[in-house]
Amino acid sequence: MDVTVAVDAMGGDYAPVEAVKGAIDAVNEFSQIKVILVGNIDEIKKELSKHEYPKDRISIEASTEIIEMGDVPTLAIKEKKNSSLVVAMKLVRDKKADAVVSAGSTGAILVGGQLIVGRIKGVKRPALCPFVPSKKGFSLLIDCGANVDAKPENLVQFAQMGSIYYANVMKKENPTVGIVNIGTEEEKGNKLVKDTYPLLKECESINFVGSVEAREIPSNPTDVIVCEAFVGNVILKLFEGVAITFLDLIKQGIYSSLRTKIGGALIKPALKGLLKTFDTKSQGGAPLLGLKGLVVKAHGNSKAYEIKTAIGQCISFKENDIQDKIAEAVKEK
Amino acid sequence: MDVTVAVDAMGGDYAPVEAVKGAIDAVNEFSQIKVILVGNIDEIKKELSKHEYPKDRISIEASTEIIEMGDVPTLAIKEKKNSSLVVAMKLVRDKKADAVVSAGSTGAILVGGQLIVGRIKGVKRPALCPFVPSKKGFSLLIDCGANVDAKPENLVQFAQMGSIYYANVMKKENPTVGIVNIGTEEEKGNKLVKDTYPLLKECESINFVGSVEAREIPSNPTDVIVCEAFVGNVILKLFEGVAITFLDLIKQGIYSSLRTKIGGALIKPALKGLLKTFDTKSQGGAPLLGLKGLVVKAHGNSKAYEIKTAIGQCISFKENDIQDKIAEAVKEK
Repeated sequence: MDVTVAVDAMGGDYAPVEAVKGAIDAVNEFSQIKVILVGNIDEIKKELSKHEYPKDRISIEASTEIIEMGDVPTLAIKEKKNSSLVVAMKLVRDKKADAVVSAGSTGAILVGGQLIVGRIKGVKRPALCPFVPSKKGFSLLIDCGANVDAKPENLVQFAQMGSIYYANVMKKENPTVGIVNIGTEEEKGNKLVKDTYPLLKECESINFVGSVEAREIPSNPTDVIVCEAFVGNVILKLFEGVAITFLDLIKQGIYSSLRTKIGGALIKPALKGLLKTFDTKSQGGAPLLGLKGLVVKAHGNSKAYEIKTAIGQCISFKENDIQDKIAEAVKEK
Repeated sequence: MDVTVAVDAMGGDYAPVEAVKGAIDAVNEFSQIKVILVGNIDEIKKELSKHEYPKDRISIEASTEIIEMGDVPTLAIKEKKNSSLVVAMKLVRDKKADAVVSAGSTGAILVGGQLIVGRIKGVKRPALCPFVPSKKGFSLLIDCGANVDAKPENLVQFAQMGSIYYANVMKKENPTVGIVNIGTEEEKGNKLVKDTYPLLKECESINFVGSVEAREIPSNPTDVIVCEAFVGNVILKLFEGVAITFLDLIKQGIYSSLRTKIGGALIKPALKGLLKTFDTKSQGGAPLLGLKGLVVKAHGNSKAYEIKTAIGQCISFKENDIQDKIAEAVKEK
């Protein structure tokens, strides 16, 4: 089965160089993948000319504008109709591509996903859900998007969509679902969590196991971690911030003297293992679930490897009919 | 100036042994401190008999009950009138002590603080505010308590109380204040943050500098970090969880082979530096600000060192008239 991915070649810190290279790596690695690179034709052609690749599996779609990180998302999507992101999303809307991958502005991707690609009937809000690493493996943190102040029924749909995605992508039946809370007892929490908890308990299509305290997220979380987007964003960013700061301080410590440099060289393999355990990049980008097509948000500082992984993750999405399964799940409700 | 601290000798994982030892260390280290140990007389006397200390500066107040971690806070405070925590708090209410230190149930401490010690006139909600470590030093994270779903005016008071506490305890005039947000622009955030932002900007008694993204908290935060309690709790717990998991994985890596063990021995001083930078314990417990007396919540797993530090931190609270300054600040509003 062919999977066609529209790649926003102009989005992200290293566009178009790394976006183009990632697309080439993807078609070379995954035989099912076709890529449509969307952006400035001349720049894309220049990058493509540097590499070897199957010419029939990469095409170019021209766009003339770029959505910048400082643009107001709603305005950018409405006014920059010829931007690489908008053009790429229209390819999905018009069924010319199965998915979009962009390392551009998160806000614009969220707005564009809803306005251009459109929500699946019955889905009240799409949700952005990156994988976060833990000692146990990876958990899906849903929602980390920009639609804050969610309602209980939104969180229930996040749990359903997240479970379907996790089960199919991670190949694990009945993934466990927990809700981020400030205690493990059912009566704990803010109003949103207290109102959502019984609805999750009643929801038959998910394997709800109760509250997840933030402390457990890096060590022993559930497979799917449900939360409101403001909280999800705080978790994602703080996780990243603590990890970066820690590694930075360890490096500083190691480079502080000859003695520690020697020690550092000896434990390097062990530290690399640590880095690998906590490497979110190995899981590609964060899908925006609940849309009539797949939209994948790659990290703004993605290089070719991350773009390639994000493109690759579109395969299991299509092969497993995740979109249809989500449509079916929200219809049942 | 004498500072009398009522110590809940029965609260925490290592009570009464470590609570008593911490009290002894405190009176030996701080000449201003007097301690009233509240709890089971026989047990406390037995522990006291093991140590040397100035007898005139430690006394005992009997209590017969203990609030357990599983007790429902409101019920425990109302029904266990002869518990060590309730008796200790009554000593503050009755002006027999300046402060309470407890490593017991956070929920019971919050409820007891409000019901027994009582709020300062004008304070709508007390706030629990631990110091969190960063590369720059320590920031006060306010609120991490159990009163979730705060209103904008509550957050403004948290900013005021936190600024007063930080300025006096950290000896820094005009500490910077930021609000936890999911972006740095003023228009970002959930409803609570958007409604609070302009109020913080207008508030003349604080040095508000804008939003703080969770990513910056471990590296470059403001001195006072304002947030609603649910978010604060998630930040505090996740910070702790990531730090513990990281150190655990580093240790695992170091103990994995002879080579890494040697390397580990060589970088040990550097890793110790890292641990020290991120050691919240050096800052004592978390004060519950806004009450007619100081209530300090020590970590449940506190040992003598943490209890001693928590007792010591009561000195600057009294010497700097922090309570009066808070009363003055909220009256002005």
